[in-house]
Amino acid sequence: MPLLTRIQGPRDLDRLTPDQLTELAGDIRSFLIDAVSRTGGHLGPNLGVVELTIALHRVFDSPRDRILWDTGHQSYVHKLLTGRKDFSALRSRGGLAGYPSRAESEHDVIENSHASTVLGWADGLAKANQLRGVDDHVVAVTGDGALTGGMAWEAMNNIAAGKDRPLVIVVNDNERSYSPTIGGLANHLATLRTTDGYERFLARGKQMLNRTPVVGRPLYGTLHGAKKGLKDAIAPQGMFEDLGLKYVGPIDGHDIQALESALQRAKRFGGPVIVHCLTEKGRGYRPAREDEADQFHSVGVIHPDTGLPVSESRADWTSVFGEEILKLGREREDIVAITAAMLRPVGLQSFAEEFPDRVYDVGIAEQHGAVSAAGLATGGLHPVFAVYATFLNRAFDQLLMDVALHRCGVTFVLDRAGITGPDGASHHGMWDMSILQCVPGLRLAAPRDAEQLRAQLREAVEVEDAPTVVRYSKGKVGVTVPSVGTVGGMDVLREAGAEQPDVLLVSVGALAPLCLEAAELLDRQGITTTVVDPRWVLPVDAELPKLAAEHRVVVTVEDNSRAGGVGSAVAQALRDAEVDVPLRDFGIPPRFIPHATREEILAEIGLTAPDIARQVTGLVARIDGRYDTAHLTSD
Amino acid sequence: MPLLTRIQGPRDLDRLTPDQLTELAGDIRSFLIDAVSRTGGHLGPNLGVVELTIALHRVFDSPRDRILWDTGHQSYVHKLLTGRKDFSALRSRGGLAGYPSRAESEHDVIENSHASTVLGWADGLAKANQLRGVDDHVVAVTGDGALTGGMAWEAMNNIAAGKDRPLVIVVNDNERSYSPTIGGLANHLATLRTTDGYERFLARGKQMLNRTPVVGRPLYGTLHGAKKGLKDAIAPQGMFEDLGLKYVGPIDGHDIQALESALQRAKRFGGPVIVHCLTEKGRGYRPAREDEADQFHSVGVIHPDTGLPVSESRADWTSVFGEEILKLGREREDIVAITAAMLRPVGLQSFAEEFPDRVYDVGIAEQHGAVSAAGLATGGLHPVFAVYATFLNRAFDQLLMDVALHRCGVTFVLDRAGITGPDGASHHGMWDMSILQCVPGLRLAAPRDAEQLRAQLREAVEVEDAPTVVRYSKGKVGVTVPSVGTVGGMDVLREAGAEQPDVLLVSVGALAPLCLEAAELLDRQGITTTVVDPRWVLPVDAELPKLAAEHRVVVTVEDNSRAGGVGSAVAQALRDAEVDVPLRDFGIPPRFIPHATREEILAEIGLTAPDIARQVTGLVARIDGRYDTAHLTSD
Repeated sequence: MPLLTRIQGPRDLDRLTPDQLTELAGDIRSFLIDAVSRTGGHLGPNLGVVELTIALHRVFDSPRDRILWDTGHQSYVHKLLTGRKDFSALRSRGGLAGYPSRAESEHDVIENSHASTVLGWADGLAKANQLRGVDDHVVAVTGDGALTGGMAWEAMNNIAAGKDRPLVIVVNDNERSYSPTIGGLANHLATLRTTDGYERFLARGKQMLNRTPVVGRPLYGTLHGAKKGLKDAIAPQGMFEDLGLKYVGPIDGHDIQALESALQRAKRFGGPVIVHCLTEKGRGYRPAREDEADQFHSVGVIHPDTGLPVSESRADWTSVFGEEILKLGREREDIVAITAAMLRPVGLQSFAEEFPDRVYDVGIAEQHGAVSAAGLATGGLHPVFAVYATFLNRAFDQLLMDVALHRCGVTFVLDRAGITGPDGASHHGMWDMSILQCVPGLRLAAPRDAEQLRAQLREAVEVEDAPTVVRYSKGKVGVTVPSVGTVGGMDVLREAGAEQPDVLLVSVGALAPLCLEAAELLDRQGITTTVVDPRWVLPVDAELPKLAAEHRVVVTVEDNSRAGGVGSAVAQALRDAEVDVPLRDFGIPPRFIPHATREEILAEIGLTAPDIARQVTGLVARIDGRYDTAHLTSD
Repeated sequence: MPLLTRIQGPRDLDRLTPDQLTELAGDIRSFLIDAVSRTGGHLGPNLGVVELTIALHRVFDSPRDRILWDTGHQSYVHKLLTGRKDFSALRSRGGLAGYPSRAESEHDVIENSHASTVLGWADGLAKANQLRGVDDHVVAVTGDGALTGGMAWEAMNNIAAGKDRPLVIVVNDNERSYSPTIGGLANHLATLRTTDGYERFLARGKQMLNRTPVVGRPLYGTLHGAKKGLKDAIAPQGMFEDLGLKYVGPIDGHDIQALESALQRAKRFGGPVIVHCLTEKGRGYRPAREDEADQFHSVGVIHPDTGLPVSESRADWTSVFGEEILKLGREREDIVAITAAMLRPVGLQSFAEEFPDRVYDVGIAEQHGAVSAAGLATGGLHPVFAVYATFLNRAFDQLLMDVALHRCGVTFVLDRAGITGPDGASHHGMWDMSILQCVPGLRLAAPRDAEQLRAQLREAVEVEDAPTVVRYSKGKVGVTVPSVGTVGGMDVLREAGAEQPDVLLVSVGALAPLCLEAAELLDRQGITTTVVDPRWVLPVDAELPKLAAEHRVVVTVEDNSRAGGVGSAVAQALRDAEVDVPLRDFGIPPRFIPHATREEILAEIGLTAPDIARQVTGLVARIDGRYDTAHLTSD
């Protein structure tokens, strides 16, 4: 790859000829397919933005000009062009992040990988430039999927008000977010694609279309969508222009010269302008293009020629949920499912195939997922909104004010809760229990294994007067952990084997095996330990304070930020019951945690059985020294 | 008021003649002006929707058909027409709520008064109707202001996808939310107003325009906005149609016949349709129409003829902030202010007058307020986003992921924190400290008096690498509470006067006088009490655990939900420091609290000095019995 090797920074692109640029694009694609098939990562999106990224870095002068990426998983090419070519440890500890990272490069601005944020950032940066009299450019690359998010609308409304603030919005339109983009906007974009400008694009891009029937078909279909198509042939700028945003496009997003010319126009415009680029996710990689579900949005380690996974996939939390919600769907007609543009990743594929009328993909619109669920519940249905734990943050107000205040029976299923791993700080699901703790009436289940997930999902959908939440981890489910008894609604996983035991270990969710292991280690130190799984961790089980009072120390272990987690809730329940047994809460430290494997991170933050056992041993020893322990049975 | 007296429910409207309907509208306006001037309330918005509400209840059959109100403060007329005519205790304990209330009437659906939610609810209800084969209608009344919120966009995008789901969206366009509506959408609505349809409306509504020059002027102005006006004269449906929503309008929102005819068309349409109605906030009440700032959006007790407040306004938290931010603005050019459509209510009026280029009204778009602040900060400015505490819930993800993760120096000023009173469950600012507790790096100040507010605001804007939050109450500021010493960054407000004191009382914000009073009461029981104000309550001051260890009991008192509040954070800090002194946390119980005065609510939830003193006395007595207290000095 002689050409790519010569690119140390964006300015090295300046002297390349058109042919060399095309060659470079080819180099980059080969590099990406080779590198990402070894490590896993967001392959499809990056194959789609090779030419666009080259053109952006030729027309704009990063880092003086700010090139901003929405959901930065499409920043691999940007990384390559800004001097980062060691992809060997992509998304692994110490290796390149899967998203932009300011620690890696001055060319990176937004690290956040929650979608639809980039236009808001761009508006702020453009306002700052204007106020400070700086004439650098701000370029925001967003996608058709990201535009379905409310933040994008709020930003467009504000950007349009700043007629004299230069700001280039590149809409990277590949007709999908994770799933195909939905809703009125998607239809409108389809209309724009079919207008005059697009027909010129077709003439130029004919040979491409022959190779890629997948894109061609739906576009040709919409070409004949008579009424809207005709109207927009006269006024192809459509709603963007209605809002007051200049519209340039549509542009063939794989034609570097066309892209550069459009971006130059946009750069000169002097106000907010939208450049509508049409790209193909997975471009240039047959296995990706032929994958109709998500065009290799994000892959694990794969064989580069076939695109097939190298390791077998095993039963994971998501698929257990997927099976059970399908069964529930067959049993109860009132159960409907909601996804925010992630039908398959959250396990709703089978449900959608069997009950296409009972699943709603709302777009990247968690707020709407929650508020429309309140409406569905009020209308007599039981919605199950399956969403990644970290993305629930977007719907907190709606969960509180629309669902909980109105006592709607809505079940939120939080996938990827706790430490997730390679996606870094913005993908760990470590906030949900903290923010949900204060929601009146809410009940939250943290199943410890597949059997419990099935059971608790069933219990959740039975609740018709309050929000219920079922949260579980990423990845494969561990062994089934049997209960040896119950206290209140809680499962006892281990009896202490002593009349007046030392430690009550409260285990949350998938950490049960870890807690049992810690209990064994404590036992070896002569510290008798009960392990209990509350199953429903919010609200705290009414029997927990009584059980706690029978022990000398209470220890909670959870896969959530310690700040405001289950430990805090249990501590408060003990205070309220006037049980002043010392408590120690183990969980995720309240800081942002970078990418690494889940195991590496758990070890680093001390969420392991030996770490917990060691600390609890110290605590018990300290308490023996300080308090009167005469009433306790010696072990 | 013979006509209004005869209306016991919406069906009583059916037999009224056009003249009688006009008479009824007059009756209702007189009633509202008279009633609301006695109690205070949302006068302006309700005067604007008299005819619209009458028409809605004639065309649709509530409660079978669902009439949904966005930000339900515009539901007074709806209450009158659905049998609720006793406004004597409006927004007072036991009286009518200021928003819809399902406890009051089967005609009410959405109680939430956070804006922009109604379209999401409507989408859910329409989907439920479709799935269950019910052919009742769903009608959502929203406003031009509410449409600036991202939730509205997410909902429109989804509603447009449901071509076969009947849903009537009434856009009650009065050109304002609280403040005049901003952004590209507002410009587009202005364009729609000036099209053919609007000119017909003008012809019909001439006599009205003569009476109401305030509305006439800007509309005539936009009539001449050549390019867009011409384009939209051909395609007046504009962006709504682009999204796939049928557009009907604009309609004179004070012409009952025109409204009924449009609503009937919409009802028959069989899919999603927008009815664009033009109304005047404060219609028919000269003092409101002449109030250019907010047209009597929400008033206190006023004299009905003059509209002047009956009681003098006194120095409140908001105006203290307003004065100090103005001073800061003069001192530091990099300080900019952000408001989400509430410039005056959050105290930014003076700042905006002096620095019009440095204040950004983002619309009802808290998400954008926060994310654009991250951009502004990254661009070298220090944004101060002033917002009601309860509305911050909308921006949690952006505060966490855009501001905190990126270590941006952004100051959030939370007005109306704690128990607010007459606006009920959705306006109490009792969630902020709970959800902010888990945000890494965030620092939160709860000033106890005006002096502290000024000082802490200044400290907050000095922080350039993390979000800072300053939160304060609604209403007038109490007396200045002097410090008698400091420990770490904390102010000691009262020394216990004993070598080994009993109680450490941790006072949060404006509750300082209450805590001092409780301390005095404890003192009379012989319980020595230190009172400390941490000033910065998040993170917990490093010296607090040491100070706690010198006491027998720690008591926290805060004006936030107990779940996840400062008490929880302090408890965790004590645990982490291995200080196992018993702690009791007083705060707002974790449930939804209906409207009443702040004082009534505080008394009801036991957040008073005598209540706290009584409980702490009991606790100390209990501890004396249980623990070895030989080491304590007797009092």
